Amino acid sequence: MTSPDVTTLRKTVADLHAELVRYNLVVWTAGNVSGRVPGEDLFVIKPSGVSYDELTPDNMVVCDLDGNLVEGEHSPSSDTAAHAYVYRNMPDVGGVVHTHSTYASAWAARGEAIPCVLTAMADEFGGEIPVGPFALIGDDSIGKGIVETLKGHRSKAVLMQNHGVFSIGKDAKAAVKAAVMCEDVARTVHIARQLGDPLPIAQDDIDRLYDRYQNVYGQRSPR
Amino acid sequence: MTSPDVTTLRKTVADLHAELVRYNLVVWTAGNVSGRVPGEDLFVIKPSGVSYDELTPDNMVVCDLDGNLVEGEHSPSSDTAAHAYVYRNMPDVGGVVHTHSTYASAWAARGEAIPCVLTAMADEFGGEIPVGPFALIGDDSIGKGIVETLKGHRSKAVLMQNHGVFSIGKDAKAAVKAAVMCEDVARTVHIARQLGDPLPIAQDDIDRLYDRYQNVYGQRSPR
Amino acid sequence: MTSPDVTTLRKTVADLHAELVRYNLVVWTAGNVSGRVPGEDLFVIKPSGVSYDELTPDNMVVCDLDGNLVEGEHSPSSDTAAHAYVYRNMPDVGGVVHTHSTYASAWAARGEAIPCVLTAMADEFGGEIPVGPFALIGDDSIGKGIVETLKGHRSKAVLMQNHGVFSIGKDAKAAVKAAVMCEDVARTVHIARQLGDPLPIAQDDIDRLYDRYQNVYGQRSPR
Amino acid sequence: MTSPDVTTLRKTVADLHAELVRYNLVVWTAGNVSGRVPGEDLFVIKPSGVSYDELTPDNMVVCDLDGNLVEGEHSPSSDTAAHAYVYRNMPDVGGVVHTHSTYASAWAARGEAIPCVLTAMADEFGGEIPVGPFALIGDDSIGKGIVETLKGHRSKAVLMQNHGVFSIGKDAKAAVKAAVMCEDVARTVHIARQLGDPLPIAQDDIDRLYDRYQNVYGQRSPR
Repeated sequence: MTSPDVTTLRKTVADLHAELVRYNLVVWTAGNVSGRVPGEDLFVIKPSGVSYDELTPDNMVVCDLDGNLVEGEHSPSSDTAAHAYVYRNMPDVGGVVHTHSTYASAWAARGEAIPCVLTAMADEFGGEIPVGPFALIGDDSIGKGIVETLKGHRSKAVLMQNHGVFSIGKDAKAAVKAAVMCEDVARTVHIARQLGDPLPIAQDDIDRLYDRYQNVYGQRSPR
Repeated sequence: MTSPDVTTLRKTVADLHAELVRYNLVVWTAGNVSGRVPGEDLFVIKPSGVSYDELTPDNMVVCDLDGNLVEGEHSPSSDTAAHAYVYRNMPDVGGVVHTHSTYASAWAARGEAIPCVLTAMADEFGGEIPVGPFALIGDDSIGKGIVETLKGHRSKAVLMQNHGVFSIGKDAKAAVKAAVMCEDVARTVHIARQLGDPLPIAQDDIDRLYDRYQNVYGQRSPR
Repeated sequence: MTSPDVTTLRKTVADLHAELVRYNLVVWTAGNVSGRVPGEDLFVIKPSGVSYDELTPDNMVVCDLDGNLVEGEHSPSSDTAAHAYVYRNMPDVGGVVHTHSTYASAWAARGEAIPCVLTAMADEFGGEIPVGPFALIGDDSIGKGIVETLKGHRSKAVLMQNHGVFSIGKDAKAAVKAAVMCEDVARTVHIARQLGDPLPIAQDDIDRLYDRYQNVYGQRSPR
Repeated sequence: MTSPDVTTLRKTVADLHAELVRYNLVVWTAGNVSGRVPGEDLFVIKPSGVSYDELTPDNMVVCDLDGNLVEGEHSPSSDTAAHAYVYRNMPDVGGVVHTHSTYASAWAARGEAIPCVLTAMADEFGGEIPVGPFALIGDDSIGKGIVETLKGHRSKAVLMQNHGVFSIGKDAKAAVKAAVMCEDVARTVHIARQLGDPLPIAQDDIDRLYDRYQNVYGQRSPR
């Protein structure tokens, strides 16, 4: 449990919460990051009820893929069951982020997908950012809604209806990037829509942009 | 008067004003936090006309429940009468916060309650955030308006018409959290409404979310 | 010229620019504060083309009431003529501030006064914030427009059409406070109006609030 | 290559990225600044995939005017081809900036030029901020679109359709100023338009303001 991987990941996950604060994706303690421990059925996640200022590698907690606490003095985030469900059912996912970021949550409150009208959105999400079902906390409903929406979808973020955003990635940092970009495009497209209809991007162009960003471009170095 | 409780509370109340600044709930000196001294008919409140940068435990002031200055070199906040009225009439309240936070005050300017269309709002407020009456400063009108609106209501925040927000809590920190969450949901629901109608959440689901957050969830640890 | 008053005022005026930055009223170098030297026909103002990070008491400049440079190594702000005109024609004014703050400038772009629908606005401005004429830089047109609009008006701020805000006060700090409060109410009333009509406040109530804030309340200490 | 000019420019370009962060023009790593090396067919640009916190003079990269890497350990920004095309085809341009700043990108998403309804906009841009074509990354399409739109145009910024902003200037700092002012006026005009039609500024007045700011005013010192 005190493997070098877990030690490193505790620090990575603790530090990544600062990005949620920096980009104004969270208020109070309402948002969390987790990362899967490479090669083990474990993930590191934010403790419940600890403010972002006070997060340290030491107070992160470790859970198994059923969401049970394995290591740590605090309770895990109240959203742990949703993170665990994603890790159990999407083996390629190495990081999960949950926020109630303002503009994305506004689209979620209307149950409306964000249309792909920005090249940065085509790059990162490959099309629209979809809406997942309304689901109550307390069982696997939220996790199932995330997985059913994102499995096989290009988008790495889902707008859970009336709730907020869950994003995924190959690791915790990629999931944080998806959460940051999701709020950024949610805001820009919202503002564009306030004064008229954004121009569509042709599907072929979306495909080209996505392909280039994920493949050609990705083989060299991240932007 | 120099009891350990008062000394501790002076620091707590002074420090909590930094949260109003951090979350952009206040400009200049227009917002204040108070906390009831446990077991005594006293509360600690922000001094009038002192900027947030200059607040210290020492320049906080102590008032009795009629709003009279009991200890301190500065005049108490000009909103002291409203805080005092709440403490006199709601014995379970241990903290009160007042702000003119932007989005909540915009709902207040229209005299419109914020509908409960976000799960975070169901968790924290258990339904809509209600509107209190238009009331002038100078007597107990504001205090009465707050108490009449919030007594027996699930919401810990009230939008005082054409004015701003008062929030309450079991202690000063809980009242600050309610003020922060009130502005957060006021903003998200406003933005959702700009482009259409948010989807409603069924009353049963609001009840379940509120019950879980306040009871089951609350018995373990705060989020 | 190196009187203690000028030395003190150089520091006061330099430091007050940090409030414009703190409250996001300015970008780049587009905003300025000035203060009248007590008992002399002089005022201290921001130098032209110096960024807010680099302002110090020493690089502030001193001008006479015709806007001529009297002391300082930099050119005075390009808005100096407007400041000078105000000091020449409004002897009670001890401070002037100019910004292009976002929401106030948006009202100015439509040439629309901000209606008084918030108690904080009644307190500070005693009614609506009025619009001044469209005026080109280069002569006394802007100064005249400010003075004609604000002389005898309760409001300490004017929205110059298609341009931005000028605010005045008994000293530089009061003018900065008026600029901060002007943007704050411009934003809140804008947001209120986006989703419907704000409720009016009766003129009698506006008068009572203004009278109390400026007189009764003001005799004790500033909020 | 290790000429004093390049050494100085590496620091200038690295430091100017902090202005993009300060004015909230960028998230994650999606924005970049470049500067032409005086008297040489070279420019200094941000490396790809390095976060703004980690930019130093040493990790900036140097490219020739075909966008080929000449000096540096990192890959150049993925937008290098567009910067290079501008330098090749606009010999007076000494700096280029690219951002996806929110309000400007919202106008770009609708393919709508920003009308000149603010005096600050007449000063800086001399009229509307124009829209450039939709163009895919990967060849010279973006660069051509920028040059065709801005060559002979007063505006130093172009809204590339469905994409974001490119701005130019006599040096990197001037291009950054244009990017900052572009977002500032994009935001103010957007907000003005939300509640009605901004008042137009007569073309003669726009011409006078632009002429004064660029000539008379510019001969003395920058504002």
